[in-house]
Amino acid sequence: MYDFETEFEVRDYECDIQGIVNNSVYQNYLEHTRHKFLTSLGHDFAKLSKQGINPVVYKVIIEYKKPLKSGDKFICRLKMQKEGNLKLIFKQDIYRKPDEMLMVKGEVTAVVLKNGRPVKPDFLVS
Amino acid sequence: MYDFETEFEVRDYECDIQGIVNNSVYQNYLEHTRHKFLTSLGHDFAKLSKQGINPVVYKVIIEYKKPLKSGDKFICRLKMQKEGNLKLIFKQDIYRKPDEMLMVKGEVTAVVLKNGRPVKPDFLVS
Amino acid sequence: MYDFETEFEVRDYECDIQGIVNNSVYQNYLEHTRHKFLTSLGHDFAKLSKQGINPVVYKVIIEYKKPLKSGDKFICRLKMQKEGNLKLIFKQDIYRKPDEMLMVKGEVTAVVLKNGRPVKPDFLVS
Amino acid sequence: MYDFETEFEVRDYECDIQGIVNNSVYQNYLEHTRHKFLTSLGHDFAKLSKQGINPVVYKVIIEYKKPLKSGDKFICRLKMQKEGNLKLIFKQDIYRKPDEMLMVKGEVTAVVLKNGRPVKPDFLVS
Repeated sequence: MYDFETEFEVRDYECDIQGIVNNSVYQNYLEHTRHKFLTSLGHDFAKLSKQGINPVVYKVIIEYKKPLKSGDKFICRLKMQKEGNLKLIFKQDIYRKPDEMLMVKGEVTAVVLKNGRPVKPDFLVS
Repeated sequence: MYDFETEFEVRDYECDIQGIVNNSVYQNYLEHTRHKFLTSLGHDFAKLSKQGINPVVYKVIIEYKKPLKSGDKFICRLKMQKEGNLKLIFKQDIYRKPDEMLMVKGEVTAVVLKNGRPVKPDFLVS
Repeated sequence: MYDFETEFEVRDYECDIQGIVNNSVYQNYLEHTRHKFLTSLGHDFAKLSKQGINPVVYKVIIEYKKPLKSGDKFICRLKMQKEGNLKLIFKQDIYRKPDEMLMVKGEVTAVVLKNGRPVKPDFLVS
Repeated sequence: MYDFETEFEVRDYECDIQGIVNNSVYQNYLEHTRHKFLTSLGHDFAKLSKQGINPVVYKVIIEYKKPLKSGDKFICRLKMQKEGNLKLIFKQDIYRKPDEMLMVKGEVTAVVLKNGRPVKPDFLVS
């Protein structure tokens, strides 16, 4: 059902006063997962950027089900699909290890800009 | 139309390889705005946390309209409303200065937990 | 005694499990202060970077005297001096408001690279 | 020569406008390495914190030899030694993979506070 997955562990500096991973940090996890997915397809975010090709996030929806805590290990899973001609939808879910509890449900909509204009993301998905 | 606003400026360490503010950083801006709003109402996030009262984010929706860049100044505006008995909805929008361009539209749903259980957020909104 | 100063307030997302500002965040404060100092001299870090001129940090020494906490306001003060032909030394100290307690003492050594090679920082200090 | 090592890879959100890992992020790497070292000794930073035992950083010296970039993998190596009765010195160096280039040399001085007062760190090193 997913196209890609990668593992992480919580780092203490990612936790806040409440002793749990700060909400913004999940976006870091989701971004790093997308970039590793890109790499697994033979692309490189930093190189694309130098060529004037910038995948940019258009919309993010994150549902926080349960908080990750210091010491937790977890898996970020990703499914990519096209919407219309220009949009990419990434379904991105975070599961705690080893109990496979769903912690976060994410949906990230991205478009690919080439020299500032949206282009069909055909190099990523057909 | 908004209940609260506060000003920021982009700090260079918040910008990424693309030369624009990283997507996750906007959640920091939104969180800091909510906490300053709390403070303006006479509450304190860190003190609430020590009393076992934890406002937690349940869902975030962020639309990225235009990117903030190094040197930009901007205003975060917030409107709080109740949904049902337990949920708080924060409409949070970011406008660039001085042209008042809408950069980001956010909607953050929160619930207040007391010793881990949802309670009515009557100390915040009636 | 100092050449420049700028004010901040602690943001809750900068605090960690111990309820105090995480050690790494002070480097953000120090960097932002240096960049604002550059701006006050008529220079712009992002623009310099596009021209191939990159001030880079060579060495950092930070003494943590007392921790900043949620809600604290503070002032970052900076003094710049040359060392030899190529090095810039920034003495950077952080004082809490309003009691002027010294929280952090920093010393940052930087060099200016132009297309990857060190150059005399004469546009900054003579 | 080192007591502990752990591997990382650069995440793109850790890179800044210059396209290299931001200086402050190395402190995150060094902290996470120390906490994993603690864990390897059977201790847990978050649990210690709840018991009122807080290892705190007193001084940091970081020499930036070469910058880490997007996609780099690297190893953080650590050596712990006592200084006097109360201080712990962590020598922490970062080597790029696979060429073993030394990127960063760090020295972190810490003390252990119990309910706010320095105590001998005998549970860590004798």
